Amino acid sequence: MKINSNYLNLKDNYLFADVAKKSSEFVKKNPAAKLINLGIGDVTLPLCTAVVDSMQQAVLEMGQKETFKGYGPYQGYDFLRSAVKNYYASRNVDISLDEIFVSDGAKSDVANILDIFSKDNSVLVPDPVYPVYVDTNVMAGREIQYLNANEENDFLPLPNRSIHEDIIYLCSPNNPTGAVYNYDQLKQWVDYALENDAIILFDAAYEAFISDEDLPRSIFEIEGAKKCAIEFCSLSKTAGFTGVRCGYTIVPAELNFEGNSINKLWFRRQSTKFNGVSYIVQKGAAAVFSSDGMNQVKESINYYKENAKLIAKVLTERKIYFIGGKNSPYIWLKCPNRMTSWAFFDFLLKEANIVGTPGSGFGYNGEGFFRLSSFGERSDILNAANKLKNVI
Amino acid sequence: MKINSNYLNLKDNYLFADVAKKSSEFVKKNPAAKLINLGIGDVTLPLCTAVVDSMQQAVLEMGQKETFKGYGPYQGYDFLRSAVKNYYASRNVDISLDEIFVSDGAKSDVANILDIFSKDNSVLVPDPVYPVYVDTNVMAGREIQYLNANEENDFLPLPNRSIHEDIIYLCSPNNPTGAVYNYDQLKQWVDYALENDAIILFDAAYEAFISDEDLPRSIFEIEGAKKCAIEFCSLSKTAGFTGVRCGYTIVPAELNFEGNSINKLWFRRQSTKFNGVSYIVQKGAAAVFSSDGMNQVKESINYYKENAKLIAKVLTERKIYFIGGKNSPYIWLKCPNRMTSWAFFDFLLKEANIVGTPGSGFGYNGEGFFRLSSFGERSDILNAANKLKNVI
Repeated sequence: MKINSNYLNLKDNYLFADVAKKSSEFVKKNPAAKLINLGIGDVTLPLCTAVVDSMQQAVLEMGQKETFKGYGPYQGYDFLRSAVKNYYASRNVDISLDEIFVSDGAKSDVANILDIFSKDNSVLVPDPVYPVYVDTNVMAGREIQYLNANEENDFLPLPNRSIHEDIIYLCSPNNPTGAVYNYDQLKQWVDYALENDAIILFDAAYEAFISDEDLPRSIFEIEGAKKCAIEFCSLSKTAGFTGVRCGYTIVPAELNFEGNSINKLWFRRQSTKFNGVSYIVQKGAAAVFSSDGMNQVKESINYYKENAKLIAKVLTERKIYFIGGKNSPYIWLKCPNRMTSWAFFDFLLKEANIVGTPGSGFGYNGEGFFRLSSFGERSDILNAANKLKNVI
Repeated sequence: MKINSNYLNLKDNYLFADVAKKSSEFVKKNPAAKLINLGIGDVTLPLCTAVVDSMQQAVLEMGQKETFKGYGPYQGYDFLRSAVKNYYASRNVDISLDEIFVSDGAKSDVANILDIFSKDNSVLVPDPVYPVYVDTNVMAGREIQYLNANEENDFLPLPNRSIHEDIIYLCSPNNPTGAVYNYDQLKQWVDYALENDAIILFDAAYEAFISDEDLPRSIFEIEGAKKCAIEFCSLSKTAGFTGVRCGYTIVPAELNFEGNSINKLWFRRQSTKFNGVSYIVQKGAAAVFSSDGMNQVKESINYYKENAKLIAKVLTERKIYFIGGKNSPYIWLKCPNRMTSWAFFDFLLKEANIVGTPGSGFGYNGEGFFRLSSFGERSDILNAANKLKNVI
């Protein structure tokens, strides 16, 4: 039996392991120090009451013969897909139920979607990047081209019309940079994809953090996108679902390549290799889109965004270049005094007892940059902002 | 952008669609007829109270800041993996926590495991068969060899030592036939795999239906299996989790091919393409393995098995060849009077108003056979058994 040898080409990423190691070594040497964690990429606020109530009810239903549910529909229950449809409709995007696939999270679908594409496609991945885009293509043996995101383009690279690509990854609001494409920029990507018969894999996991009315929250707000894009969404950051596991993927009916409906291919993949999301989880997810749910999750998002604002204020005062933090939970800053990412990590740890994430861990263009996250306690953030002000 | 053209080689399976169509046409023509569904492959009894209570508690925890859980460990929480470890230990099988991967169901893992194997492996799939084994290999472009399961070998085919295979699928208790391998037979498969440097993908989704003490419930009860097998388990049929979604996969630490740890490759696959199972679901799953949970789920399984017994009794009386129904929820019978599977379907529908599943839908060797399921109401089963007795 032979293994998939592409796996041997994967690079191990020790970013978060190294961060943890350095932090714990520091604490060992400085037992009095109380570290403030701004490296966290996970939510910290609990589920809202609308979601809790709905899941409580669903659990009870599963315990009664009359209301028990066995296998659900492969694409997800209509009650949840209708809620997603209405969510899009509220932003004037018309999506039909058949175009919505309920998932156990954006990560699974972003990774598994590659199953329906040929190995022979060229792939364009932004750098810095969420490592899953890279690793999943390495596993399949695809060559990867990198798209440079840097200070020059404000970490929002645009298409190079002289180069052809087949599969394009875009993530907006971006992880790790927090940068958000505007309508005009996304339109350039859609036009490029249509010209090149390419597909855009649009990761919108952080869309709920967009509050500027003039920024698109879905690629389907752009004309032509339904002919060239798939959108991956998640309730992980929208509603604190990182431990609950639910997302949704939009595969437009109009999306055709080589005469084949991508929607039908994806349905075939999912109905063969997946058995749907827990009824209880889907009931919780539907509650997010209720009017109570929407108000409650907005409160949590505003809490995180207020955190980001407090950090951003210090950086602005200290005239440090940064992006994100406004329509995103992440702040991506340029390390002061030309420090490398890891040098700034050490500096911040020692001088302010703040733990952040070195940008170099996200790719070549991340060197010299640093990610701070707003998923913390307000008191910690206030404390961090004060300390930050004193040392930079 | 080019699609994965292997998908164009997939055959559509209209088995259950055709069953539904014929049944509804019959009801239209015979509005007075009350159909009894023995075609059902899904559980019907509700979750047991131990599971319901545990999930209720977990939902509440998720709504409180102090007990909220974000991302969980990729392989699953220790509390659940410890419970699985103890479950194996109770049958004298020693499995370590690192060898247990919590999944959202056996189907996902049986399908996704192929990701870590080379396309160039030969594949041996039993026939009749659970269609997922076939379709997932077609999607990857692998050639499939079929292993004939038939009346001659009591639907428990043994290895052909003159032929080499790399990947071998075994399902015991079998879906659709209900046949169960004994120790000696499984030992032959393990020996064959070790001799051929092959891997056995052992689907044990129905293991909880085994009550004969002299039948193995895990392939790891066979000496040498940890060097050649992966086992896929599910709580779907064990505890009525088809709508809750939880299973577990055992990848032994000793399993090495071409010098690579399969356990480590699978961890790499799962940590890259999967984000774990809902905390709430894992709490429910752990409750299955508590002593209350074990007693409660056994009650449901016994209920289904009593159903199977009632049907089996009629077939025995009528001297009809069948297997399964004793250590399995399925009964696999030979259609009387040399009828084809579909002819017997029509006959049973018309004469007894019973809906079953034509064996030919599961592969070449299924022709002339028929599957009856025991996942129904007792009153329906009693009614069906009576009608069956009168017509065959």
